[in-house]
Amino acid sequence: MSRPLILVTNDDGIVAPGIRALVEVAAELGEVVVVAPDSPQSGKGHAITIHDPIRLKHVKVFPDIEAWECSGTPVDCVKLAKHIVLKDRQIDLCVSGINHGSNASINIIYSGTLSAAMEASLEGIKSIGFSLLDYSFEANFEPGKPWIKALMQYALDNPFHESKLLNVNIPNIPDGDIRGLRLCRQADARWVEEFLEARDPSNQPYYWLTGKFVNKDLAEDTDVWALEHGYISVVPSMHDLTHYAALKSMQGIEQLGAGAYLKH
Amino acid sequence: MSRPLILVTNDDGIVAPGIRALVEVAAELGEVVVVAPDSPQSGKGHAITIHDPIRLKHVKVFPDIEAWECSGTPVDCVKLAKHIVLKDRQIDLCVSGINHGSNASINIIYSGTLSAAMEASLEGIKSIGFSLLDYSFEANFEPGKPWIKALMQYALDNPFHESKLLNVNIPNIPDGDIRGLRLCRQADARWVEEFLEARDPSNQPYYWLTGKFVNKDLAEDTDVWALEHGYISVVPSMHDLTHYAALKSMQGIEQLGAGAYLKH
Repeated sequence: MSRPLILVTNDDGIVAPGIRALVEVAAELGEVVVVAPDSPQSGKGHAITIHDPIRLKHVKVFPDIEAWECSGTPVDCVKLAKHIVLKDRQIDLCVSGINHGSNASINIIYSGTLSAAMEASLEGIKSIGFSLLDYSFEANFEPGKPWIKALMQYALDNPFHESKLLNVNIPNIPDGDIRGLRLCRQADARWVEEFLEARDPSNQPYYWLTGKFVNKDLAEDTDVWALEHGYISVVPSMHDLTHYAALKSMQGIEQLGAGAYLKH
Repeated sequence: MSRPLILVTNDDGIVAPGIRALVEVAAELGEVVVVAPDSPQSGKGHAITIHDPIRLKHVKVFPDIEAWECSGTPVDCVKLAKHIVLKDRQIDLCVSGINHGSNASINIIYSGTLSAAMEASLEGIKSIGFSLLDYSFEANFEPGKPWIKALMQYALDNPFHESKLLNVNIPNIPDGDIRGLRLCRQADARWVEEFLEARDPSNQPYYWLTGKFVNKDLAEDTDVWALEHGYISVVPSMHDLTHYAALKSMQGIEQLGAGAYLKH
């Protein structure tokens, strides 16, 4: 029986330690092909490259693993992987990460890591985005590896049915202290911005985006709660952004005419 | 009584005809402040600018309207508008667009227009993304204007309750042929990619992303159906990507141990 085909990508770039850790785990389970950005692409969300051409280059980064670096966004990487690199071969699983830093809660919408996984899920491919709650380049990915392997094997062995996309975050705690996996919903937290203003030599202002993560959603069924209590959070996710409850409560809007509120 | 404060942005850039049409409508209803990208930002999704500084410049683009152009993404524009330009004044409504081209169905996740509106909704601001199904620079925004005004006035007058974000798409048909507003869910359609490959003078390959929109979700409660039948589609949307049905059906995943599938 042929080994399953696993596509690996990320948003921190192909030389980030996180993707190396993920490739090592994936290589134990299947045939691995890597298509990842040639530069850091954090915070790129679901961006695609429309107004510029995209470069794709075969590289030797991992021993015995086919790898390509791409000048585009994480979502571009998945599109190019499927249609150019793998020429529409069946991909059994797409894994993205391991991201250096949390993608829990609202981070999912800003994250290139998760957007890449979502793009694969749109193509009908089971996908998992992995993130470790440690932003540093020297983050220790070892404690999470057996859990990542278990989740990847589970994904290969089981149909995902409704959701094809899992957002998995790993607490930054020592081996043995991880209490298990916890299926959660996305906490309703957000970033509170604080711009850093500076001046260039012509005294013109420019701004650096910064901010802090604020969570007022303290319920025990959230990913933030799970992570704070030593669990790996697993959020089944989706690309349908319809607010179904509002679809019922806002029915009155259909009665609006073009002239309903017009004063002329 | 002071006039409501309306923030206007887009992703086609501050000189696009679509934003001019939107500013004209907004100025009839309130005090308008424009913060929009200084260059086209289509397909930027929910990208934010992390690794580069962002420029913000006061410009005279619209008569008697305060306007700023920003070097960042549409989401950056909303963040800067709230915290730098408006210094945390209360924004009563954020409108984004009018986008040149459809943002119905899955386009919502790639769209800078809708991501800007979503960013405002994350801040608790009622937001509407408007798009016209005509990609051309010379698109005719006139037939949609009375409907846009009615929706904006409705948004100012009514609490949105559950959803703070509306994705509104306008069919490209003549004045008088628009049949009304239709509250819909996002159709489950997607883009099928076709990359255009070319060679540079060094014979190195590069790729242009292209593709076609394919919809197999023909149900009458979708935005694509509404648009094809002469309605303006209104999809109440949200930033919670949790797949709640899968949250129940995948409970078994919590039983996985780190060693569950490990062969060592």
